[in-house]
Amino acid sequence: MKKNYLLTPGPTPLPPLVLEAMAKPIIHHRTPQFQAIIKEVSEGLKYVFQTKGDVYMLASSGTGAMEAAIINILSPQDTVLIVQAGKFGERWTEICNAYSIKSEVLNVEWGKAVDPEVINRKLKGDPKIKAVFTTLCETSTGVATDIKAIGAIVKNTDAVLVVDAISGLGAIDLKTDEWNVDICVSGSQKGLMLPPGLGFITVSEKAWKKNAESKCPKYYFDLKKAKKSLACVDTPFTPAITLIIALAEVLKMIKQEGLENIFSRHKRLADATRSAAKALGLELFAPTAASDVVTAVKVPVGIDGEKLVKAMRDTYGVTIAGGQSEMKGKIFRFAHMGYMNEFDIITGISCLEKVLAQMGYKFTLGSGVKAAEEVLLK
Amino acid sequence: MKKNYLLTPGPTPLPPLVLEAMAKPIIHHRTPQFQAIIKEVSEGLKYVFQTKGDVYMLASSGTGAMEAAIINILSPQDTVLIVQAGKFGERWTEICNAYSIKSEVLNVEWGKAVDPEVINRKLKGDPKIKAVFTTLCETSTGVATDIKAIGAIVKNTDAVLVVDAISGLGAIDLKTDEWNVDICVSGSQKGLMLPPGLGFITVSEKAWKKNAESKCPKYYFDLKKAKKSLACVDTPFTPAITLIIALAEVLKMIKQEGLENIFSRHKRLADATRSAAKALGLELFAPTAASDVVTAVKVPVGIDGEKLVKAMRDTYGVTIAGGQSEMKGKIFRFAHMGYMNEFDIITGISCLEKVLAQMGYKFTLGSGVKAAEEVLLK
Repeated sequence: MKKNYLLTPGPTPLPPLVLEAMAKPIIHHRTPQFQAIIKEVSEGLKYVFQTKGDVYMLASSGTGAMEAAIINILSPQDTVLIVQAGKFGERWTEICNAYSIKSEVLNVEWGKAVDPEVINRKLKGDPKIKAVFTTLCETSTGVATDIKAIGAIVKNTDAVLVVDAISGLGAIDLKTDEWNVDICVSGSQKGLMLPPGLGFITVSEKAWKKNAESKCPKYYFDLKKAKKSLACVDTPFTPAITLIIALAEVLKMIKQEGLENIFSRHKRLADATRSAAKALGLELFAPTAASDVVTAVKVPVGIDGEKLVKAMRDTYGVTIAGGQSEMKGKIFRFAHMGYMNEFDIITGISCLEKVLAQMGYKFTLGSGVKAAEEVLLK
Repeated sequence: MKKNYLLTPGPTPLPPLVLEAMAKPIIHHRTPQFQAIIKEVSEGLKYVFQTKGDVYMLASSGTGAMEAAIINILSPQDTVLIVQAGKFGERWTEICNAYSIKSEVLNVEWGKAVDPEVINRKLKGDPKIKAVFTTLCETSTGVATDIKAIGAIVKNTDAVLVVDAISGLGAIDLKTDEWNVDICVSGSQKGLMLPPGLGFITVSEKAWKKNAESKCPKYYFDLKKAKKSLACVDTPFTPAITLIIALAEVLKMIKQEGLENIFSRHKRLADATRSAAKALGLELFAPTAASDVVTAVKVPVGIDGEKLVKAMRDTYGVTIAGGQSEMKGKIFRFAHMGYMNEFDIITGISCLEKVLAQMGYKFTLGSGVKAAEEVLLK
């Protein structure tokens, strides 16, 4: 009997409440019934984003929301600073390139976190920089960025701080207002435990000022339209109705568990995973600055990383993620994000042990699970 | 006991198979399991779009796909011809304006269809026109456009023909290849019987040539990326997984009923609706060129159109649509699109009779339903 387990950094498993919400007959979006839902999720999103400002919903994946962040505050030929420490940092650069925005790229070795002081020096050295682009959790490496420290630097400049919190929001702490994040972007299929197809974006007062000067062309992702509509409890275009209805359920779950408890749970699961990996004699890809969202582990010598991921998924139904781009076959990524508890982690580690053993890797069977259990017993 | 009935031109009611598909645990999109679904829906979409070419799927609502159509073939300062016969024709103009594309607007009175000969004269008079933008079914008025005739004109020019088939595809005939439609855009929440959040777009060889010269900036909606990914049975960004899985179910239903039978069903339901309206002494808003997708009816003198729609919805659970923009309060729109059969129409007409009677409108009770039954008995 093969059952399916999803331990990937997006999509993450869906709670039964979400599945039930999506199985209900659809309602029309221009009705008081749907307006009540918009009101409810607007409040809930403020809680999750830790902001007093509005959170706009876009019918798009996270990348659409990233593009919205760029084109709503910048103009062609503007200069920006981009922290590029993995595949998703690179995406900021790619979108800026598409709009003829000049990017100063701060390349950080994959598996390492950016030193906020380097950002400070860059900003002091080039007052033309209008925005700093970062990634809360770089899913491709599992590294978390010190957004709080970066926010404290950027707030003293004319630049705005833009954070890709697609992976991480609702799993690890991100205080949008308190940490001076001007634009925070996220997606539905990660910490928010929904299917993909819904993007989110916040805009600070400082960022709205940049918006007034922005000359990048835009229509579908024009946040002025989103702002105007939300003021009338509406959306400018047909919204992703089903996902928004399911979001209302998720936000209730999040409120009930409480953000602090959610962050602690993610930390425990991450600690257990890291501890298990070490006990199995495996090396963490990001031993410093590892996020509590996804753990990247180096594929041990003599093991085919792609075959490992494939065997776990196709033979045993446990889906983890392999490495992306330059890390293909070199790491595997084990997510512990969203609708996840300790036994999901135990299942994943047990399956990893089974496949490693079958592939001839030498270790003490059960040592990974034991190490995880030790962490989880505390 | 209040039950809910959805007779709006998008979203349309969801078949139980769709609800069931969305209630299943989600799978990851970079897996052979999801690739099998991409392959399946790609074939099914070609059948529905009546094309041999690829149909690209975007995680967006239909407006996102409209923007993709424009920015993938044009450059700022290009000249285009836009048929504007309602709210959705206006949307083409708005998006073109956002990208500094010059639009020659062909204004058609709301409720009327464009005369293809006028397009012919415009194209002959201005060889700079690079694209002609039209709407298969103008949802705001219920009017269907003669795409076949327009395609026969545009194919002899250097311009490409772009059709917004968001309302209409899978409900009324549209032969993308045979009618020389270069770009056909659609959405999920209409004839395709899915929730909103999935956009579709086809691109002819002639349109790909325009793409090679296009200078509009783009990233998320860049169809070159979509083409490259689809060749590897993939999507450039995280797709709307749940909707695509549900789409596979819908496409099986469509294949089973057969496009010709689906079009006949829509015609019967539309005929019944129009006949009922006339029997009730109501005036059709678009007596000529009425589509079989949605029927727009003039609100009779002495009746408050907004109250009519509100009472049907809030008191009896039957949601129809009111008028949009300049038609607000002046018409109501009764959709017969997608997962609809004759008894849905009877229910809608019966509820309309009830509310009209309660609002003091003079007519013979039951005459609308009787007229519909007469059509449906044939």
